Amino acid sequence: LALKGSNYAGLLERHRIHTKNVEHVVDSLRNERIEVRLVKRREYNEETVRWADAVISAGGDGTMLLAASKVFDKFKPVIGVNTDPERSEGHLCLPVRYTHSFPEALQKLYRGEFRWQWRQRIRLYLEGTGINTTPVDLHEQQLSQEQHSRAHINERFQDQKSDISGPHLLPVRALNEVFIGESLSSRENFKSCKPSFKFSLHRASYYEISVDDGPWEKQKSSGLNVCTGTGSKAWSYNINKVAHQAIEEILKIAKKHGGLNMPLNTELVQKVTNDYNESLLYSPEEPKMFFSVREPIVNRVFSSNRQRGFSSKVCVRSRCWDACMVVDGGTSFEFNDGAIASILIDTEDSLCTVLLEE
Amino acid sequence: LALKGSNYAGLLERHRIHTKNVEHVVDSLRNERIEVRLVKRREYNEETVRWADAVISAGGDGTMLLAASKVFDKFKPVIGVNTDPERSEGHLCLPVRYTHSFPEALQKLYRGEFRWQWRQRIRLYLEGTGINTTPVDLHEQQLSQEQHSRAHINERFQDQKSDISGPHLLPVRALNEVFIGESLSSRENFKSCKPSFKFSLHRASYYEISVDDGPWEKQKSSGLNVCTGTGSKAWSYNINKVAHQAIEEILKIAKKHGGLNMPLNTELVQKVTNDYNESLLYSPEEPKMFFSVREPIVNRVFSSNRQRGFSSKVCVRSRCWDACMVVDGGTSFEFNDGAIASILIDTEDSLCTVLLEE
Repeated sequence: LALKGSNYAGLLERHRIHTKNVEHVVDSLRNERIEVRLVKRREYNEETVRWADAVISAGGDGTMLLAASKVFDKFKPVIGVNTDPERSEGHLCLPVRYTHSFPEALQKLYRGEFRWQWRQRIRLYLEGTGINTTPVDLHEQQLSQEQHSRAHINERFQDQKSDISGPHLLPVRALNEVFIGESLSSRENFKSCKPSFKFSLHRASYYEISVDDGPWEKQKSSGLNVCTGTGSKAWSYNINKVAHQAIEEILKIAKKHGGLNMPLNTELVQKVTNDYNESLLYSPEEPKMFFSVREPIVNRVFSSNRQRGFSSKVCVRSRCWDACMVVDGGTSFEFNDGAIASILIDTEDSLCTVLLEE
Repeated sequence: LALKGSNYAGLLERHRIHTKNVEHVVDSLRNERIEVRLVKRREYNEETVRWADAVISAGGDGTMLLAASKVFDKFKPVIGVNTDPERSEGHLCLPVRYTHSFPEALQKLYRGEFRWQWRQRIRLYLEGTGINTTPVDLHEQQLSQEQHSRAHINERFQDQKSDISGPHLLPVRALNEVFIGESLSSRENFKSCKPSFKFSLHRASYYEISVDDGPWEKQKSSGLNVCTGTGSKAWSYNINKVAHQAIEEILKIAKKHGGLNMPLNTELVQKVTNDYNESLLYSPEEPKMFFSVREPIVNRVFSSNRQRGFSSKVCVRSRCWDACMVVDGGTSFEFNDGAIASILIDTEDSLCTVLLEE
């Protein structure tokens, strides 16, 4: 690591801090005679979840996503403790101060000084020709891109189900978002068949989309993001937010067309920027999804009438060469030409968390 | 291909059309007693370019980028003929009608009914610790992501120059853009050392940027795009354009704050949208670059004061794990922690093309 110029001392220190924070949480629980099983990423599985009355993730937002990914029971609380406040925003975790005074959080839970929060999650159905319903776990395998594609191919040959075309409910629930896009690898065995596909780090994704059972629309873009209220703060927010700089230029142009009667000052620009960006966020408990098309390509062939919006259901037909559906950045499914995904929220899939009273 | 559900008949037809169009151009030239060497992608090299008085690319915009990539002489004209008008926009090519009546284009050239156009291009300097100045040609090698990373590593061990830290001028000139971002692969040999990096199809890029020798700013984003006037119509445009839908929402908010005195009708929204998006485009002949940060992450640590703008010089210090600088989607250079890139336009690097009179 040091040879690479990485900050080894920094990494070691953050590990030390994390370890100390984990010990604090575990000790606080055991002091209350609560039975605790401390498991690492690789040992965390559905048997452990079944054993537990509640699950506490100790890490950052990524760890919370992983913890949630194995909980399918809407009455099993999952609570996040941010043990890495320097690096993680902790959107999905308890406020940072409980990291160092976890007994305070426990007392609030005992006294009922909290309310339950149900974070809605997205479910996925897959159907069509030549589909592959086997998930590839991106965290555990830490695959290179080529191995990632090979893993999908190997699983395909083992999975008989893919011949039955009826919609398959995939064994995952997205807490943040589902992202659909080209995987960016080019497969060796198809080398000679791909004269028109340029290998690059940015390949456009080609698909058809139908929102709320509306008409199908062909799209070409850098990918499609469908998020929950929880995820509206995450990647979706970064895709859709508009910079103060851009709002200022837009309002300048509106003024030029005689449309602005107020002076165009920083205060107005700031208000409009804040309001606009805030309109991208919504409650994790609302059973609605927000879809957004990333960098839509608009030309003679491809239109993009609706590039973003709320919806109850999104259907996507892949016209991609080598694409994936990625759930919470952690689990991916092959999504190539012939596959059709249906994306929606079912409140039975919600994740139970707590909001402590302040 | 057919097994994959691809449109084999369609691909074959487009190949037939392309071949016919190429024959038309070659015949038109030979009818004028012009000596023509017809070369395919793999045979196109600097010796062929040296032999030629002019280069004609027959394909789409991608083929034009490839043709330009081996021309470093600003007095050697490169002309593009769009042989695939169904699929390629042909921004870099002659108007589509000359594809079927190339003699008409030749006549205009003979009669001087054209003007020279010099498309400015970007040059790159690389310096710092552990740098690798060997380009990886993404088109010719059609590598999988893993092979791509390995190619970089293998070249590294062979390249002695990387120990000398002075700025190296890279042997490429960007006609569209330079894109800097994480490569999205995770290397096997570093598997155990990367506890904090999640493998996913979307990994944020971390770097520092200085514009026009200004102060260094840390940024985390989905990548940095620095384009030419030519490239301002390409990927840069898709990154930065704002949808009618978004402009409408922004103006609605401005109106709510009492800022709009005109009725907010479709006409105003359309005007503002068109003006704004047009402001992203500029002449290929202007010796200035346009940089844009893709999906900047703004939080406690990372700011993003200027997310886009014109500049004469952009310097970037990589803090990335496994990133690349990609030129015109075709050539990539390793760009990891320790490397510093200087990006600028030198008019000596311009590409000579023609604009026919209409």
